[in-house]
Parts: sequence; structure tokens; C-alpha cells
Amino acid sequence: MPHYAIGIDLGGTNIKAALVERSEGLISASSVPTETDQGAAHVLDRIVEVAQSVIDAAPGKHIAGIGIGAPGTINWDRTSLIYPPNIPGWEVINLREVLQKRLRKDLHVIVENDANAAALGSAHYGAGRPYDSFIMVTLGTGVGGAIIHQNTIFRGTTGAAGEIGHMTIDYDGPIDQAGVAGAIEAYLGQRFLSRHARYQLLNYPDSPLHQDAGPEMKDLTPAMLSEAASAGDEGATTVLAWAGHKLGCCLGSCINLLDIRTIIVGGGVSAAGDLILEPARKSVLHYIKPGLREGVKILQETLGNEVGMLGAAYLVFELLDTHAHSSERS
Amino acid sequence: MPHYAIGIDLGGTNIKAALVERSEGLISASSVPTETDQGAAHVLDRIVEVAQSVIDAAPGKHIAGIGIGAPGTINWDRTSLIYPPNIPGWEVINLREVLQKRLRKDLHVIVENDANAAALGSAHYGAGRPYDSFIMVTLGTGVGGAIIHQNTIFRGTTGAAGEIGHMTIDYDGPIDQAGVAGAIEAYLGQRFLSRHARYQLLNYPDSPLHQDAGPEMKDLTPAMLSEAASAGDEGATTVLAWAGHKLGCCLGSCINLLDIRTIIVGGGVSAAGDLILEPARKSVLHYIKPGLREGVKILQETLGNEVGMLGAAYLVFELLDTHAHSSERS
Repeated sequence: MPHYAIGIDLGGTNIKAALVERSEGLISASSVPTETDQGAAHVLDRIVEVAQSVIDAAPGKHIAGIGIGAPGTINWDRTSLIYPPNIPGWEVINLREVLQKRLRKDLHVIVENDANAAALGSAHYGAGRPYDSFIMVTLGTGVGGAIIHQNTIFRGTTGAAGEIGHMTIDYDGPIDQAGVAGAIEAYLGQRFLSRHARYQLLNYPDSPLHQDAGPEMKDLTPAMLSEAASAGDEGATTVLAWAGHKLGCCLGSCINLLDIRTIIVGGGVSAAGDLILEPARKSVLHYIKPGLREGVKILQETLGNEVGMLGAAYLVFELLDTHAHSSERS
Repeated sequence: MPHYAIGIDLGGTNIKAALVERSEGLISASSVPTETDQGAAHVLDRIVEVAQSVIDAAPGKHIAGIGIGAPGTINWDRTSLIYPPNIPGWEVINLREVLQKRLRKDLHVIVENDANAAALGSAHYGAGRPYDSFIMVTLGTGVGGAIIHQNTIFRGTTGAAGEIGHMTIDYDGPIDQAGVAGAIEAYLGQRFLSRHARYQLLNYPDSPLHQDAGPEMKDLTPAMLSEAASAGDEGATTVLAWAGHKLGCCLGSCINLLDIRTIIVGGGVSAAGDLILEPARKSVLHYIKPGLREGVKILQETLGNEVGMLGAAYLVFELLDTHAHSSERS
């Protein structure tokens, strides 16, 4: 019997939703703009709308529930999203209650941190499939992370484990948006990386990026850096190698602490692929105790942003498993 | 019915063994010099000897097994100690086989990393008792660590998790004995801390440590620093505050990654207590994402080095529990 669930990736720009079948993966997807400027109630309407559109597009298919990956804090029973940093005016909203009321009373609804959802997606559908345990790093606007240990999300005490972005690699280094000096996000977060690139590229006056990235290179994005580096731009290559080296330092600390030696890197900036990952693979070994260096792997997530939706849907499948187990026992 | 086990702490200087009763804790203890210079076979004899002496001192008490905390790598089924760094000539020795053969065939024997054993001891008998989850840091010759998550040791993929000592806080910092730049051990490891103190104290010519610590202060130990600082020595206080600040930076990274907010600090250097821990409590908050700062605690282990033996013995009690559960099920 096929098992269907909806996976939603609640981003600051778009809300993406997918119909996912447990074995087959992503069946169809749809996306609406989040329009956070119109307030929390509006965003809630958009979530209901995009979920409804996925349901409508799958007549006759029994959809067991909806999983939602969202930035910010999730309560321990994974029903509510609390003060998401990218949706102003959203305080504490119980998404389970809202979606059950407005869509279907018997829908399972689970909310999870977006990096955790992406890691779960990678574990079951993406680059993480061959591994019982791995560390997921997402390089996007910020730097996120998650830990998969023995096929489940390691959540820590309150569900917030995996905040790799705020781990320091230089106690006296540049300060990230959370106030942490030398946090890896202060090197690889999109805004920080672009600023570093703008300054570093002053040493490469022949780089075409001086023309392509607008006045004072204000429009420079990591994607433009990747593209330029792929085309052989020395300055862009230098910037990405610098970023990869820093990433490796931080991942070394993670491996020392967790003894989990497979790293999967996702998020927009990871599209740079080996331009970032190859320098990271070199530096990471210098930041790990020798006894733990064997078998260290840094891999690129191949499914891109789809893993977020896939993992969100998988939360529902996990829940169904739990229910099946407990009814077997009783 | 009382439950007895022997807990052994296999150190480079001494082998300490204790008779432990599950509820009452440490009943009696004994210690022999390790004499590593006489080779692995001799050390093995010493282990057997000290265990036998504990057995002899407890006539009529049924001792279920022996747990051993040892530095170095332990195999996954926790029977063998592999290349311990402080016992030259010791390659791979199956301690279960040896102790069962030479002491009693039905003894349970379990070997565990010494930091993990100390954490387990703290969890069941020491400062860790009120907490389901905590991070243990041991400040001794080196800096060790362990993770207790939901009352059990988090072992990672190969059992080597918790290598906090080699986590970097400055990717371009001083290099520790494992080759890792800016590793916390390169600040707080005994040799590194003493060297830093010798140089820092040049700025404090009136410190009595210039007399007490021998020519060029070559005999300076962390214990002498603690003592001097407790007596009001400004130079020694400055050194310990510097060390505590660095410790806090590293612990911040651990908390971001694990979302485990209770830290217990043990090991010889932790005898400095608040002289190190108070500066760590201040700096740690600057190295954690704001959402995770609430409830962060850095505590001193109050049982001292006893936790290692207690935790080693507890490995046996855990094993008995597992056996009891599986015989209930079958």
C-alpha cells in the first residue's frame, strides 16, 4: 500500500510543499511566496492554501499527514513554531491545531526545525542514505546543522541540537548575528561571505565580477562566486577555498565531539561543490585527533532543497511507524 | 540484595581499584603503581593483583564483575584496550579474556574510555546525579570529555565521542600534542597551562611562585597555581581566569552542537574550582546562540577522581540490567 504525506518547507521567501510517497519520494511539488510582510495570519493562510493545493492535486490518494520544516524554535512535542526569525509578528502558533481545524481533523501534523528536516530527508532520500549517522550542514543565508545518529535526529535537551553555525573557530574572530565571536556563520553566512569576497576581490582587479556584481559589487552572491570560480576566476576560487578551509576547521570540532565522521553539506552555497568542499576535506583532517581521522567523508547533498520537503514528509512516516509499533505491543 | 562490582581506573602513574556497592557507592579502595616502564605484561599483572586484593578484602561478597576505565581506544564490544597512549608496548589486549582466565571465569568484564567512565560515575554517584544529560570535561594532564545523553554514554560511531580536548577555539592558534591548532588542550592541558603561567608570571615579579616553583619555575603545577590564587596571588589568578575564559569558549561550541546545557568539570585542574569556573561561566554565554543560553550550568565534580572507579564499576551494573531485561523478555 502506498503511503502519502505532505512535506512543507517554510522559508522566508517561499513556502514549498510536496506530495511525497514513502518509497518513491517526491511525487509533485508546488510553491507560493511567503509574503512575510503581510503578517503571521497571512503566512498561516498561505500554508493552508499550499497544502490544500497539494491535496486537491492528488484525488483518491490517502494523505496521512503534513510535516513542516521551519526555522526557529519548535516546542518539544513538535506541534508549535515559536518566534521564527524570518516571519515578523509570528509568536507561538500551534500548527497542528490550525491545520487539523482548517484542512482535515485526522491529519497528523508535525513541525520540526528546518535543518533537522533536511537531514532526515537526506537520510532517507538523499546523500545520507548509506549512512546510519551523519552530520548535516546547510550553507544558506545562515549556517544550519543537524545530527543524525543511528537513523534518528539527535535533538538534545530541548530539540535545538545541531546549531553548528554558532560554533566558534576563533574566540577573538568576527562576530556573527547571534553575537558569537568567530562563529562559522561569520565566515560562511551569505552576507559575511559576500562581504569578504568584495574585499578580497580588490586584490583581483581583473575579475569580471567587478563588472557583473553591480556598483561596489553590492549584488555579489555566493552563486556568482561559484559560477566565476568554475569559469576559472582566480579571485573567486581563492574566496571559496578560504571559506572551505574555515568550514573544515569547524567540522573537525564536530567530529572530535561526536565521533560521527560523515558530513553532508547542503544549502544554496553548497552548489559551489568541490570548490568549497575540497579545501574543507583538506583542512578538516588537521582539526581532528589522529585516531578519529580515518573514514572522514565530506559529501555534497545531491537533492538540493528538495531534502527539506522530503524530510518534513518523512516525519509523518516516522510517526506512523511509532503508532504501528505501539499498537502491535498493546 | 546488595550488588557488588570492582571499578578500576587504569592511569599512567597508578592503578586504582574500588569495591563498589550499587546503592552505597564506594566501599573500599586500593592502589598500586602502574610501573609502565616495566612493560605491558607487568602492567597486566598489576591489574590482576589489585583486583585480586579487592576480592580478597571482601570475603563472602558476590562480586559480579570488573569495569575498567582506561585512556586510549576501546573496541566496540568493550573487551579490549587498544594502544593506550600512556602504556608503551601495550598493543591490543583483550582484558575480558585475561581477567576471566586469571581471576574467575564468570566475572563480567567491561572496558571503557576513562572519560566516559568518569562521566558515568558522575551521573550515578557525583555532581551529575540530578541531570539526565550533561557534558563531562576532565582537566588533567590532557583535556578529556564525555557526553551523557538520557542517562547513557553517547559513544558516536566507534565509541570515541567526547574528544573535547581537540576541539579548536582558534584555527590559527597554538598546536596541541595531536597536531590540532588552537585545540583547547593547547591552553588547558597541564604542560601548556604551566608554560603559559611561567611566561605570564614574568609580569608579576612579586609572585611567591618565582621562589616556590623551582629554577625557571620548571616545577610549576596547576595545583600550585590554584593554591597561590586562593591565597590572593594576582598573577596566578590572572592565569586561571585566562584558562577559564578559553574553557568557556570551547564549552559554548559544545552546547551549540549538542543542546546539552549542563557541564560538569572534573580532573585535577578542576580543583581550582571557581577560579577557573567563574570566568568560564561568563565567557560561555558569549559563545552560545542566544536561544540556547537559558539554563546553562558549569559545575565542579565534587567526588574528585573517585568518579572514574565508580563509573567503571557502574558499567557492570548496567550490563546486569541489560541481562535482566533480556531474560524478562524471553
